Order: sequence, then structure tokens, then C-alpha cells
Amino acid sequence: MAASTRTSLSRSEALGLLTLSGASLAVLANTFHDDGEPLIASLALSLLAFALCYAMIRWLGPRFIAAGFSGRDMSKASRPLLPECMGAVCAAVYLLTVIIFIPFPFYKDIVAATSGGGNRDVVLQAESVNQGRFLHRFPHNKMLQPNHYSAPGQLASYLSAIISLQTIALLGIGDDLFDIRWRHKWWIPGLASIPLLVVYFVDFDVTSVVIPIQLQPYLGELFDLGGFYYLYMACVAMFCPQSINMLAGINGIEVSQCLVIALLLAFNDCLYLLTPYPHPATDSHLFSLYLLLPWIGVSAALLRHNWFPARVFVGDTYCYFSGMVFAVVGILGHFSKTLGLLLIPQIFNFLYSVPQVFGLVPCPRHRLPRFNARTGLLEPSTTPWSPDRQPAPLVGRLLKLLASLRLLDVTLDPEDQSFTESSNFTILNLWLVWRGPLRENRLAWEVTMLQLVVGLFGLFVRHKLALLVFKEDNWGTPTLT
Amino acid sequence: MAASTRTSLSRSEALGLLTLSGASLAVLANTFHDDGEPLIASLALSLLAFALCYAMIRWLGPRFIAAGFSGRDMSKASRPLLPECMGAVCAAVYLLTVIIFIPFPFYKDIVAATSGGGNRDVVLQAESVNQGRFLHRFPHNKMLQPNHYSAPGQLASYLSAIISLQTIALLGIGDDLFDIRWRHKWWIPGLASIPLLVVYFVDFDVTSVVIPIQLQPYLGELFDLGGFYYLYMACVAMFCPQSINMLAGINGIEVSQCLVIALLLAFNDCLYLLTPYPHPATDSHLFSLYLLLPWIGVSAALLRHNWFPARVFVGDTYCYFSGMVFAVVGILGHFSKTLGLLLIPQIFNFLYSVPQVFGLVPCPRHRLPRFNARTGLLEPSTTPWSPDRQPAPLVGRLLKLLASLRLLDVTLDPEDQSFTESSNFTILNLWLVWRGPLRENRLAWEVTMLQLVVGLFGLFVRHKLALLVFKEDNWGTPTLT
Repeated sequence: MAASTRTSLSRSEALGLLTLSGASLAVLANTFHDDGEPLIASLALSLLAFALCYAMIRWLGPRFIAAGFSGRDMSKASRPLLPECMGAVCAAVYLLTVIIFIPFPFYKDIVAATSGGGNRDVVLQAESVNQGRFLHRFPHNKMLQPNHYSAPGQLASYLSAIISLQTIALLGIGDDLFDIRWRHKWWIPGLASIPLLVVYFVDFDVTSVVIPIQLQPYLGELFDLGGFYYLYMACVAMFCPQSINMLAGINGIEVSQCLVIALLLAFNDCLYLLTPYPHPATDSHLFSLYLLLPWIGVSAALLRHNWFPARVFVGDTYCYFSGMVFAVVGILGHFSKTLGLLLIPQIFNFLYSVPQVFGLVPCPRHRLPRFNARTGLLEPSTTPWSPDRQPAPLVGRLLKLLASLRLLDVTLDPEDQSFTESSNFTILNLWLVWRGPLRENRLAWEVTMLQLVVGLFGLFVRHKLALLVFKEDNWGTPTLT
Repeated sequence: MAASTRTSLSRSEALGLLTLSGASLAVLANTFHDDGEPLIASLALSLLAFALCYAMIRWLGPRFIAAGFSGRDMSKASRPLLPECMGAVCAAVYLLTVIIFIPFPFYKDIVAATSGGGNRDVVLQAESVNQGRFLHRFPHNKMLQPNHYSAPGQLASYLSAIISLQTIALLGIGDDLFDIRWRHKWWIPGLASIPLLVVYFVDFDVTSVVIPIQLQPYLGELFDLGGFYYLYMACVAMFCPQSINMLAGINGIEVSQCLVIALLLAFNDCLYLLTPYPHPATDSHLFSLYLLLPWIGVSAALLRHNWFPARVFVGDTYCYFSGMVFAVVGILGHFSKTLGLLLIPQIFNFLYSVPQVFGLVPCPRHRLPRFNARTGLLEPSTTPWSPDRQPAPLVGRLLKLLASLRLLDVTLDPEDQSFTESSNFTILNLWLVWRGPLRENRLAWEVTMLQLVVGLFGLFVRHKLALLVFKEDNWGTPTLT
């Protein structure tokens, strides 16, 4: 075990976490009554989740190494052995949090609505069923009222989100244990999206999309995608986890990108809560906040341990799970297009990777930037080309084109102009091609800032420019920023 | 890897499974329409689950061994290395099955009832919300109609059951990976019961129990247990998995006992479906069947591979998961007392184990019966007593009392009457004390039959004698057998 790995909390850490937990518990205790504010409860629980996750990651490190979950940090001179898969701790704490949170938004609103699988021992009088007990079945008045989340269908959605997230956690752990082949990995999040899609099918089954104004004369205002809508949702659920998993390889980058995306999504959600009047989309965005805030909490705790110099690794489980959190809120909140705008770096990274993913260019097992032990800086990692193994003519021209656009580092043999090596197709390597060798934390920081800037621009596009192609922002107040 | 482990299906097996799957799919395709019968769909899906699980256990054996999930069968002369933890495959197939099943009982009954988190892109007209779309919010008429399962609260219950089962699967795998200490293991199913209890709290929060007639003058007809009812449910959820995990150690016994319990529970459920008129408890028992049938399917597949001579081991995950299935149906179906009657062998085994569990008698790590390689038979395993480590006086008297009641094998030193060894406190060892050395499959068969006979007697007590202490059977027709 690496000597540098601390396995207990320092006194100031312990004190800080205890204070935070105590304050959160106090807030929580005050929140749970009839007119309690679920959003405050969610915030308090998220802080609790941060504290618990922070401590557990520290404590469980040695157990993870003992159980075989460990890996060496290749981008350090000493190549320390670090606990791997700590994202599983985040996932566990997160799941516990969102489960415990259930009563805060959903309690009592639904009691009168159920036919009572409850208390079968007492034989119900059939008359009472259709009379007294079931009169105020739903709190209709709450339906368009913000900050309350009430209909039973939304409880079912919330539960289906938990099931999908648990499934991705199970499959992510399975992946880490059984070393599933890359091709098969693609299907893992698809499998995990089934619960979500099934409950969506049972609960809503709304499969129409709004058509841009310019196309409305031809296609009408709404277009029913039918089964394709489910395919679309499954694709969103498959893309998010994989694309986050692809933007990985240096300390902190997996967590920091997720944290930025989650914060931007939460910011976008908050915009809908601040509308001066109740808005139909408010519930969706509250739903989204309830699922995002605890994830921000546990991710922040993980980032503290995973940021350069990392003392733990996050594992595939974290990337899968995080992507699934985004997919779930995007799908159930019906803002998957907005989500797409926040994932532009990931989408670019995926498209940029295509030549290696589809085998046009050889793809080594790891494409993380190369650590130069002499300078202590990261440089773009490369794929070597031997004289007897050159790219196909068309691929060769593509590589040269990319090199001339500064989208690739290509080294040619000065004698016969054959390829010697080309940089790997990831956004991290590309950034190093542009900016030159960087320290690991500097690279992580710059790419995180890139994510933030692109995401903020995406939200600006979403709320300012979307009105050019759609008749109305579902926000309802196009003038509010 | 053991040479005896086949890793592919034989031709007749493949043909049989394909035929079974084809037939099930055909039935399924016919079942999914508006008036489809969910119970038939559940049966068909359970057969599919059997086929899938059967094949996957065969295929995945080597992968499990490669991933480190393996163990030696100590009760065979050759001590073959077998894949361990195959219960995880059952759990995965089961979870997939119950998730895919969701639309069959729940589709369309709930669509009109939701306030539509659906289609946020289309701004709903507030008027339409309270008028057309939501008029027939619930299919009230179905509420007391058998074979339909409709209220949204029941979908939430079903989903919470899935979450609890997924949690126990996650924790079971965690247990197998991290080798959690025995004392901490007790809390695992308690943790997994949280989702169930939380949704129960949100959905029903009915915490009254019916008081036996004899006590009604003092306590009233109903007694509200309040928070203690949740404690009771958590205890049921903790006891079931642990008690099944304790009755283990020989080929097939874990699965065969679970299969018997599941079949008896399903039999009990069927009694409620056969009542000549709709009964309030029918829905609970349909709910129970929907969760039990797939479990019977995957357990039967596992038993074929785990029965003597075993080619796979089931792992703690199977026992935990199975116990949780029973706890979930017992709690949500409100027949936890009936469940208790079916678990009498497990309860006896637990009580019988108390001297070793609480350390009055030393408890070796494994208490499974001892294999006598010379005879090929199993004999009671024993705890040795050395002359300098004798039981406390009171414990010694207890051991002698049990021995005189033929509830223990005790060997005394002929010279000074000190203890040399005593048999371990498990029902399997006790059975061997009574019946003498047995072949492994014979022992498993006899204990399984014991489970069946005791369970049938339990059901008889439940339906015939319960009327002596309760005013009415919730069955409604005390004369029907």
C-alpha cells in the first residue's frame, strides 16, 4: 500500500464534517413537516452525503486495495498504488441519499390516492372505497404550483430513476470485475435504461416532439416519433455514460467535468424555479434538482480525493453512474436537447475519437497523455506507425489534413515522408497539441474551464436563440435571463 | 478449472430451452393487449427466465472462476473447484424479468392518472388538466376486480420492491467481495429494506394490526403499532435472508429450501385467486405471484446445476436475495405471519444455533456436515473440547440435557467425563444425529421434504386454525379449502 495514502480523517477534517453534518441534520429535522420545503431537505441531505462520502472514501481505501481494486498512477514519477473504483462509494452513498429523500416530496400527497395495498388484514368496506377516503384523490391544486411534487406518476418516475441508477451501478461493478470487452460495454447503459423506459412507457408514453417553426408547414406542430422516441431515449442513455467514460485519463478530469455539467444543469433548473408565476415545467426541473444535488455532493467529496495529486481513482463505475444521472434527469425532465448542449466537449471528443474507435487508426488500450518524467509535464501520447504498417492512402490524407488544421500531431520520416507516429484522438491530447506540454493539474483545470465556458454558451443558446426555431421556450418567459 | 465442468449446452438442452423460449414468447406476444392477463404473461416470462438463467449459468461458469469467484466442494473425494456466487446470475436475470414485466399489469391503467411529467415541451393548457384528460383518473371499477392490478400506489410498491431487491444484490456482491464481518452482515438486509419501508411509509403508512379475539376486550379490535410496525417489517426483512443463509452447506439445500418456500407461497396466493368472488386481498396475492413466479423460474434453473453433485455454488448473494424476495412479498402482501409459518425450519435452525452464535459454544468458521471420504457419507461435524478448554458449568449441563433429548451428539472422555466434542448446532447436523450418516443428496432431499411437510402444515394452521384467534380470515371464505 502506498505510504502516502492517509486512511483516517485529520482532526480539522473530522471537525468540519461533523459540523456540516450536524447543521444539515438540524435543517432536515425542521424540514420534515406538512409544509416542509423538499428542496431545502434535498440540499441538507446533499451536504450530509458530501460528508459521509468524504469520510468513507478515506476510510475504505485500504479495504478496496485489499479486495483487489487498485491501480498505479502512471503520470507520476513514483507510480503510486492507489485504490481504484471509489466511484462505487459515491454511487452507494448517493443511492442511500435519494432513497431516504423519498418521503420529503412525496409523503402524504399520495396516501389518499392509493387503493391501499395497505392493511389487507382489515377487510375494506367497498362503499368507503368509492366515497370518503378517495375523494381528494390528488392534490390537483398543487399540480401547477411550484416547489411541490405530488402526482403518483412522478413517484413512479423517481423510483424508476433509482432502479436505472442501481442497474448501472450493478453493471459497472460487473464491468470492473469481469473485464467486459469494449464492444459489449456499449450495451451496458442501454440495459440500465430499460427500467426508465418501461416506466416512462407505463406512466406517460408521450412520444411527440415539437417541430421547428421552419419545418412546421411540412410536418405539423408536433410529430409523433412513436417507438423511435424510445430508441432516442435509449441512445441518450447509452451516449452519456460512454462519452463521459471516454473523457478520462488524468487526475480529476472525470469528476470535474461531471461536476461542471451537474452544476450547469442545476443552474438551468434554478432558472425555472425563479419564474414569477407557476410554470408547467417547474416540476420537471425540481425533479432534476432532487436527483442532481446529491450527486453534486458526493462528486465534490470524490473530487477532493481525486484531484491532482490523486489519492484514489474513480473507476468506470463513476463515469457510467454519472452519465446515467444526467441521462435520467434529461429524459425524465424532457430536456435532453439542453443536456446535449452541455455535453458538447464530450460529443466532440467522441466524434474526434471515431478514427480510432472504428479501427481506421490503431487504438492502443490506453490513450491517456504521456508523462514525461524528465520535465514532469504531460505530452500528447502517440500511436506509432512502422514502415511496414502505414495508414491506408485515404486515411493518410485525412491525417495530413488534420495535421495541417492543427487537429493532430503527425511525425513523418524526413526521408520517405512515411508516417512515424500520430497523436491519439482524444480531446486531452488535442489540447496538449494546441497548448504544448502541461502539468497534469493545469491540463485538468483548463479542460474543466473549457467545459464550463462551452456549457454556459450552450445554455445561452438554449434560452436566447432557441426561439428562432421554436415558437415558444417551454420556460414561458422569453425575456427573463 | 475442473475438467468436469461443462461450459456449453448439450444439443438436447439447447433444443429444449429454445422450444421453451419460443413457446413462452408466443404466449407473451398474445398476452400484451388491453385485456391481456398479466398472470399468464408472468408465467411465460418466468419460463423465459428459467431458460435464460439455465443457459447463462452454464456459459458464465469459467468467467466466474477467472474473476476469482470459485470454491472447492469439500464434501467430495476429489474436492473439485466450482464457480461460486452463481446466485448473482439468478438475481440479474430475475431483475431483468420483473422490470420487463412492469407494462403487463400496469400499462394504461395509470396513463390518465398522471399529471404528466410527460411532454413538457408542449405547454399544457391548465384547463385541460382539470377537465377531459383527467376525468377517469383511476379505473375505480378495477380496484376490487381480481386479476387486475392498477392503482399507482401499487406500481410504486412494485418499484420499491425492485429497488430493495437490487440493493440486496449490490450488498450481497459487496459482501462476497469485501468479506464483511459476520456481525456487520446482519445489517445488510436491514439496509436493503429501507427503500421498501420508505415507499410503504409514503404510500400507505398503515401501521395497525388486528388483535386476537381473546385479547380484544383489553386492546380493541385494531392496535396501532406506529413506528414499531416499521421496526417489525425491518426485522422480517433482516431475518428472512439471514435465516436462509444459515441453512446452508450441502449441495442444493439453499436452492431447494427456497424453491419449496416460494412454491408454498405461490400456492397460498393461488388460493386467493380461486375465491368465487372478488376479494380485497386478491391484489396483494397477485402482486406476490408476480414477484414469486420469476424467482421460482430462476431458482429451478440454478437447482439443476447446484443439486448433488453440484457443478456450481450459489453464494451468499442467492440466499440474501431469496430471503429478500420472501420478505418483500410478505411485507407488501401483508402476510408476514403466514410467511413465518413457512419458515419454521429456518426459525428452528436459528434458535438451535443460538448457543454457537452467541459464543456459549465455540463456533468454527464452517459448520457444514463432515464428509467421511471412506464411506462417502456425511456425518455431523463437531466442535472439539480440549481438557483445558471445557464449557462453563451451566453450558455443560445444557449440552448434557440436549444430548439426553437426542438434540445433540456429545462425546465424553470415558475417564473423567470431560467433554471431548459436541456436534455443531445446525439443523443439518441434527438431522444426521437423528438419522445417522447419509449421502449428501439423501440429506438434502430429506431436509427439503421436511421443509415441504412443515410448510404445508403451516398453511393448514393458517387457514383452518387461525379463525380460533382471529374473527375473520382475510380470505373471506372460511369454508373454502
